Amino acid sequence: MPNKYAYGIKPIDELLTNDPSSVDKIYVRDNLSGNNVHSIFNRASDHKIPVTRVPPSKLFDLVGDVNHQGVVAAISEITYIEFEDWLIDITPTPQTAVLCLDEIEDPHNFGAILRTAAAAGITAVIVPKHRQAPVNATVMKTSAGTAGRIPIVRAVNLNQAILTLKENKFWIAGLDQNAETTIWNQKYDVPMAFVIGNEGRGMRKKTGEHCDFLLSLPMHNDVESLNASVSAALVCYEWRRQKLDGI
Amino acid sequence: MPNKYAYGIKPIDELLTNDPSSVDKIYVRDNLSGNNVHSIFNRASDHKIPVTRVPPSKLFDLVGDVNHQGVVAAISEITYIEFEDWLIDITPTPQTAVLCLDEIEDPHNFGAILRTAAAAGITAVIVPKHRQAPVNATVMKTSAGTAGRIPIVRAVNLNQAILTLKENKFWIAGLDQNAETTIWNQKYDVPMAFVIGNEGRGMRKKTGEHCDFLLSLPMHNDVESLNASVSAALVCYEWRRQKLDGI
Repeated sequence: MPNKYAYGIKPIDELLTNDPSSVDKIYVRDNLSGNNVHSIFNRASDHKIPVTRVPPSKLFDLVGDVNHQGVVAAISEITYIEFEDWLIDITPTPQTAVLCLDEIEDPHNFGAILRTAAAAGITAVIVPKHRQAPVNATVMKTSAGTAGRIPIVRAVNLNQAILTLKENKFWIAGLDQNAETTIWNQKYDVPMAFVIGNEGRGMRKKTGEHCDFLLSLPMHNDVESLNASVSAALVCYEWRRQKLDGI
Repeated sequence: MPNKYAYGIKPIDELLTNDPSSVDKIYVRDNLSGNNVHSIFNRASDHKIPVTRVPPSKLFDLVGDVNHQGVVAAISEITYIEFEDWLIDITPTPQTAVLCLDEIEDPHNFGAILRTAAAAGITAVIVPKHRQAPVNATVMKTSAGTAGRIPIVRAVNLNQAILTLKENKFWIAGLDQNAETTIWNQKYDVPMAFVIGNEGRGMRKKTGEHCDFLLSLPMHNDVESLNASVSAALVCYEWRRQKLDGI
């Protein structure tokens, strides 16, 4: 993977405008130049998408005998589900739990979280449409190929999605090292949404205000925080432990 | 960090022979050549230690006006404790728990494990002297600077160290996805040693045979395994949870 391709200057230009996070890599024919190509290079760079110069034979190998105009893009195999579409199909029960990732930027962390959430049997992972690591080749590799086994739900505004989850019977739990209750002292006997904060700054203040519970993990040796993928794993598997206990 | 340096061709040659894992980086003066220098480049490459060519002024900045012969090595700030020395000072109680890392190769995983083990209040992390990611700059960065807050104990032979731990009242628990008992269904009311297997192949067979308990984590969606740092985190914090419960 990925094994889906888009080609042609205008289609790829539109992809970079409308859905850059779906583009894993761009191939450009050797010596192809011009303003259009220059613009593709610049915008790919803005979105940290790798661009490689290749001979015409490589483009033929990728897409065959089509009018690719010298430009081919490899598209992520993972498809996102839009939050509104996902919500319609969900009947929240105490066996339902989602992770809300509050702008996780590191693709390694994102991949590790998808893998653990899938393994723990979490219902879905909800991410904001912007300022979130895209599901690219690094994410796929770190997730050990499991990223496709759990729905990845995309919300335009994560705080708005959290409010909508609340209206739909979900209870919101956020990790906060200052919380008095630990992740083990809270019963998850309702539909749950666990919010995992950004690697550097943690959960945004506004997001924290939407939480019904704030939960902590005990920290020794003056360690101030855990890696986001470790925090997510501890929460996912504590939820799973309670479900196995019949909670 | 690091902020310790060694210099001179022979000292660095000896470091690369006796303790390559302590070397983070080597600086070599521009244009310096010869068999000795060639050998340093080759052996550094064998141990995946980066070597950079620098002007004489850079070497002066690092070590001052000494006879560095054009070669300076940055040494890891972390000091290992030898297993035998560590064991003498330990009185195992039910509040004692160590992690034994069975050849963790990825420095990101190693750093993440050190950070989580320190945060969970694990007593020490035991690693084999060979075939283990060295505590280098990547490990320090991934550990968020916490790698120095937990003893890192080095054993020449990990299986031998595990047998010695058993003789010293430790019980050995290994993670094995085929085990019937989960990490939650075992009481850790004795001194514990948790064995975390290599990222690719898991725990070695011989190591598994030394285990008193084999423990699993439930896996959904056909996910076959968890990231080593995630498995380690789940075990460390389950141990911590039981200690808080007075077990």
